[in-house]
Amino acid sequence: VAYRLAFIGFGTVGQGLAEILLDKREALRSQYGFEWEVVAISDITKGAVYSEKGLDLSGVLSVLQKTGRLDGYSEGIKGWDSLKTIRETNADVIIEVTFTNIETAEPALSHVKTALSLGKHVVTSNKGPAALALEELTNLAKEKGVFFKFEGAVMSGTPLISVGLNGLAGSEIQEIRGILNGTTNYILTEMEKGKTYEEALREAQRLGYAEAVPDADVEGWDALAKILILANALMKANLKVKDVEREGITKITPSDIEEARREGKRWKLIARAQREGGKVTAQVRPQALPLEDPLAQVMGVTNALTFRTDLLGGVTVIGPGAGRKETGFALLTDLLEIHRYLSHGSRS
Amino acid sequence: VAYRLAFIGFGTVGQGLAEILLDKREALRSQYGFEWEVVAISDITKGAVYSEKGLDLSGVLSVLQKTGRLDGYSEGIKGWDSLKTIRETNADVIIEVTFTNIETAEPALSHVKTALSLGKHVVTSNKGPAALALEELTNLAKEKGVFFKFEGAVMSGTPLISVGLNGLAGSEIQEIRGILNGTTNYILTEMEKGKTYEEALREAQRLGYAEAVPDADVEGWDALAKILILANALMKANLKVKDVEREGITKITPSDIEEARREGKRWKLIARAQREGGKVTAQVRPQALPLEDPLAQVMGVTNALTFRTDLLGGVTVIGPGAGRKETGFALLTDLLEIHRYLSHGSRS
Repeated sequence: VAYRLAFIGFGTVGQGLAEILLDKREALRSQYGFEWEVVAISDITKGAVYSEKGLDLSGVLSVLQKTGRLDGYSEGIKGWDSLKTIRETNADVIIEVTFTNIETAEPALSHVKTALSLGKHVVTSNKGPAALALEELTNLAKEKGVFFKFEGAVMSGTPLISVGLNGLAGSEIQEIRGILNGTTNYILTEMEKGKTYEEALREAQRLGYAEAVPDADVEGWDALAKILILANALMKANLKVKDVEREGITKITPSDIEEARREGKRWKLIARAQREGGKVTAQVRPQALPLEDPLAQVMGVTNALTFRTDLLGGVTVIGPGAGRKETGFALLTDLLEIHRYLSHGSRS
Repeated sequence: VAYRLAFIGFGTVGQGLAEILLDKREALRSQYGFEWEVVAISDITKGAVYSEKGLDLSGVLSVLQKTGRLDGYSEGIKGWDSLKTIRETNADVIIEVTFTNIETAEPALSHVKTALSLGKHVVTSNKGPAALALEELTNLAKEKGVFFKFEGAVMSGTPLISVGLNGLAGSEIQEIRGILNGTTNYILTEMEKGKTYEEALREAQRLGYAEAVPDADVEGWDALAKILILANALMKANLKVKDVEREGITKITPSDIEEARREGKRWKLIARAQREGGKVTAQVRPQALPLEDPLAQVMGVTNALTFRTDLLGGVTVIGPGAGRKETGFALLTDLLEIHRYLSHGSRS
């Protein structure tokens, strides 16, 4: 039986997943026994299309490419908004890939709650719901016997949530410490090559790594959302946004960089959560790390995280932290994990 | 219901797992719903003990510590050998932790085959069976509806098999490249500090990192077994020992080290498998890596592996590669993975 997927939001990441699903259709079937149909796509600016028998996804993508819209596609029902799509289509997995809102998590939070309440699995790369309402959503999913998966919310397809929840299961994670924002790491890397902060930021903007208003990255909000997700998902911290100390990289000067270099150190924007005396606290702030620290060697837009556990010492995972294909892939790994559990017994 | 465990072999790693199981009994129950009894332990030199109702594991450990033997324990049936223990006890999970034999994989291979044939799950850190007979054992496990798990065979508890099979599921792994032997990496690290090969080897022996006859490490056999496991498990390569090119580190001289340093490089014993033209090949050999390579920064006994995939670029995992607690923990993560699948629906 094929999973019936509905995309809520269909920007870069959603389209990235769609392309991967099409490219890998045969491999997913033969290697994992995973089959899929996309029954609905609803995007607030591009329109919406639904067919209970499944859309011709490559047809939809090609219409989208030509017209910029989904409702130019010849078949199916048009115009259903996100909540109607979640409620009234026959989708059994909702792929929530709308924009992140770190203040209210909306509209994604309503999308996720509605889907889980109706007994539909949710797979998302949206940071909002996982950062602001993880416990509630996890409990709701459990109650309804479905999955809420969010691997792509932290380091795109680089497996972090799955390493923390599964690979390190049985150990107690005492500290997580990482470079969770590629834009700021790129800026710091360029400053080390001699640029000022402003020059490096402009270069990051030119390359599409930083937004015109770069605050979400350079003021540490993006890293904050991610450490919040990790602390709450992997360390059962139940922290809120206001509990996380936050300082960005905007005050770092070329002379700070130079002074660190003389001391054999390198500035990084470090997101960290640690358990001390039974309590988990978290911070995002620039730190000058000694070069022997594996995180100090992570340059450019690459991300990395070190887990410190009671049984294993330090384990570091380094990989891409963003990207159309990379984040689309994160959603696929979540779909495949759901499939592994649901198909257990007939697994290959 | 509690899993009924039998240890086949009870050296450092088996005792490491036993200690972890005792320390974490309550946490495993409350966090994962995982309960266990050890019903049997059979070791070729320490004797054997079996009780169908479960042994008092801390009592057995304390007798072992005092007497060096298992059969001094006051209760239970004594003297059953490994195969009788696998066949005739009521264990439903066999923990195979006898010594690695890279030529025939015996006696571990017979242990694993017997257990799987009888419908018992197998969890092992033994490299032999996974390196020499992975396809056969995987098929046998599938046919019998049980699990064959071997996370600890490659990088102790550092999650590699689970990252490759689960975290990266859906991507095609095109290359794996890593430092899979801590002893040789320690020796190369010490040589960089100015020691000769012989001095560094003696130091490694003094610290217990290298054996009196160090060939398994320094000639690359240990790394070969591990890359074979990874290539066959994660890249469906079906390679044999003889298919893997192998060169150790015994010919590396201080002047090689110095020359590499002048070129901004560092010698590492690299185990590698890559897919080219549909065919997977593998090698173990020393290479001078540029310092920008994440593997070049991995010093001492630490291990690391870089996965290169079609969808994600490079993902590197760095962590411990050996150790009593670390490898014992690998066995625990395998037990918990089995439990996650078997208990799906009632998972917490």
